[in-house]
Amino acid sequence: MLDLYIASKAGFTGERIIYDGPFKPVEALREALEKEVLLINCESFTELERLNNIAKKAGIKQPIGLRVNPYTRPSFLRSLHPKTLLEEAAFCFPKCRFGFSIEETRMAFNYLKKMKNLSLECLMMHPYHRAISVLMPLFREAYEKFEFEMKYLNIGGGFDPGTTSSTGDLLLALDYIKARLGIKSSKNKEKRAQKIEDVAKTIIEELKRSLGDLPEPTLITEPGRFIAGPAGLLLLRVDHVKVAGGYKWVVVDGGTNIVPIFYERRRLLVANNGSALNTELVNVVGPLLYPKDFVAIKTTLPDVKEGDIIAVLDCGAYSLSSSTQFLYPRPPAVLVNTEGYVKTIREKETFDDVICKDRF
Amino acid sequence: MLDLYIASKAGFTGERIIYDGPFKPVEALREALEKEVLLINCESFTELERLNNIAKKAGIKQPIGLRVNPYTRPSFLRSLHPKTLLEEAAFCFPKCRFGFSIEETRMAFNYLKKMKNLSLECLMMHPYHRAISVLMPLFREAYEKFEFEMKYLNIGGGFDPGTTSSTGDLLLALDYIKARLGIKSSKNKEKRAQKIEDVAKTIIEELKRSLGDLPEPTLITEPGRFIAGPAGLLLLRVDHVKVAGGYKWVVVDGGTNIVPIFYERRRLLVANNGSALNTELVNVVGPLLYPKDFVAIKTTLPDVKEGDIIAVLDCGAYSLSSSTQFLYPRPPAVLVNTEGYVKTIREKETFDDVICKDRF
Repeated sequence: MLDLYIASKAGFTGERIIYDGPFKPVEALREALEKEVLLINCESFTELERLNNIAKKAGIKQPIGLRVNPYTRPSFLRSLHPKTLLEEAAFCFPKCRFGFSIEETRMAFNYLKKMKNLSLECLMMHPYHRAISVLMPLFREAYEKFEFEMKYLNIGGGFDPGTTSSTGDLLLALDYIKARLGIKSSKNKEKRAQKIEDVAKTIIEELKRSLGDLPEPTLITEPGRFIAGPAGLLLLRVDHVKVAGGYKWVVVDGGTNIVPIFYERRRLLVANNGSALNTELVNVVGPLLYPKDFVAIKTTLPDVKEGDIIAVLDCGAYSLSSSTQFLYPRPPAVLVNTEGYVKTIREKETFDDVICKDRF
Repeated sequence: MLDLYIASKAGFTGERIIYDGPFKPVEALREALEKEVLLINCESFTELERLNNIAKKAGIKQPIGLRVNPYTRPSFLRSLHPKTLLEEAAFCFPKCRFGFSIEETRMAFNYLKKMKNLSLECLMMHPYHRAISVLMPLFREAYEKFEFEMKYLNIGGGFDPGTTSSTGDLLLALDYIKARLGIKSSKNKEKRAQKIEDVAKTIIEELKRSLGDLPEPTLITEPGRFIAGPAGLLLLRVDHVKVAGGYKWVVVDGGTNIVPIFYERRRLLVANNGSALNTELVNVVGPLLYPKDFVAIKTTLPDVKEGDIIAVLDCGAYSLSSSTQFLYPRPPAVLVNTEGYVKTIREKETFDDVICKDRF
């Protein structure tokens, strides 16, 4: 609902909107339908039933997609791999819960043949790199066996801008052991992302190969993070530097309140001294009272001091949008382009903004 | 700064405020001083130096406390315990970075003898259960050897309301293995918290024993979470129920956007059917697009259906205050007391509230 509202405010009309997501209450579906969005990508049988009822009442046939989820629970033995165990098995394999499994997708095809007010036009999955091999056999089946008029193939997102990498408890723990044993860390190795042009080429070639005699669908991708991520950087001020527990801690004025996901490894620069060499291994931490209020874990920086400004690159996606007002009002956002054009696109919050909804 | 502002707005005058926290820029210290707060608890030598300069300019002697941190890095061998390795070592032993180590506290005593505009009156540490045994030897030293006029002993927080417990990846992974091997889970065992009266008694007795001939300090505690936590509950609406990956998923209209820390195990009730028996093992998940948008992992509930209202108990602390506006505006807060008095103390946010700072 908020997403549809913001898209409209930003000037997007219905035919430029695809409505997606695992949570779509009746009101949200009704609104998407009223806005005449291009497609609604459905994730459950409940949603299909709901949407068919709404479309029926409105007297229309609603174009939809199905989100296909090829992720399945591994065998018990394979689930014992530490990474799978700690990140998937411990959390009940939460990736399973999105969309339709392959088997359910076929059930949905049958189900949709009976739904008079829904028109299946799209198959979707995420992330892109397995999408075509997973979706194309189903796409063919939908078209040839079930005779749906398939128009779109949505291969989701997951495109790598090459500017961040992820880490996790296990990798960080391994790195600690390596450091203690005097083995060189592999954590800060530069990795090279594939050029986006090459990624596009590979996708198109794979699609053409598997398409055969099928009519060519419109290809839809979701490169939101790829575009927005590297477009934003966060400026933080060094408050003080402290040595504790054998590490150097650079305390700055923003942390997980502004950049919530500290497992993302981002590049840091000293903005007021860009040419200085990175000589020190430090942790950069925010102002909150949590031990894990990290901006960066074990990163190299020049010798920084109070008042230095640290630029955290690749903060354009899922940072300000999922920031909190816990202890600090949120910072402004400023648009700068290569021609030197500067504009505040989001005002700085005041203390009163934070409590404006409170009634004493 | 925001904390001082909110405290003032709520009617607290300076002498009822103790200013605490690992991040206190010069402006914040200056403001605390101007507000004539009872104490400023300092966490670093940088802060002591800053505060002394500010107090000097203002021509006053500022009462302060020192935050003592007894946490030290374990030996390499001991750090290899899986829990320590994944939660501490991987993250560079982040608990070390707060306050002064025992050794640094003694250095700070010496340092403070030379600081003419600071008056040490308090020692502080967190959490309470080790506080007296850690603080009292230092308190005695400060009083007898360094001749500070010690007035306060601040034993921090960490009081257990007995209504939540924490879990973590490791425990959840272990529980998964147990379940697969047919061993009974120990995860949902009821634990019994000590009565707060008994906790208080133990503290007082321990303090009296270790006090000896020292003048009796005023005892300060920080029971914020103990009071606020159980006082708040969150009402969530069931949107739909789904089976995937061998688990049942109850999808509700609020998740880690409102209750960010899903490692807290809270008690859940079906508010519109309070007497129903818990018969099913389910995961309760929120509306976001992240796999780990959990409200509760492997909890038992009655057979819930669309439209049911789930009450999540113990949501009064660190929930709404650290909530985000990611995809959904924030809910209202309603005060209800035992006499049936009902008042909205925080208004529901609108879509426009979420984007009110954006400039198009």
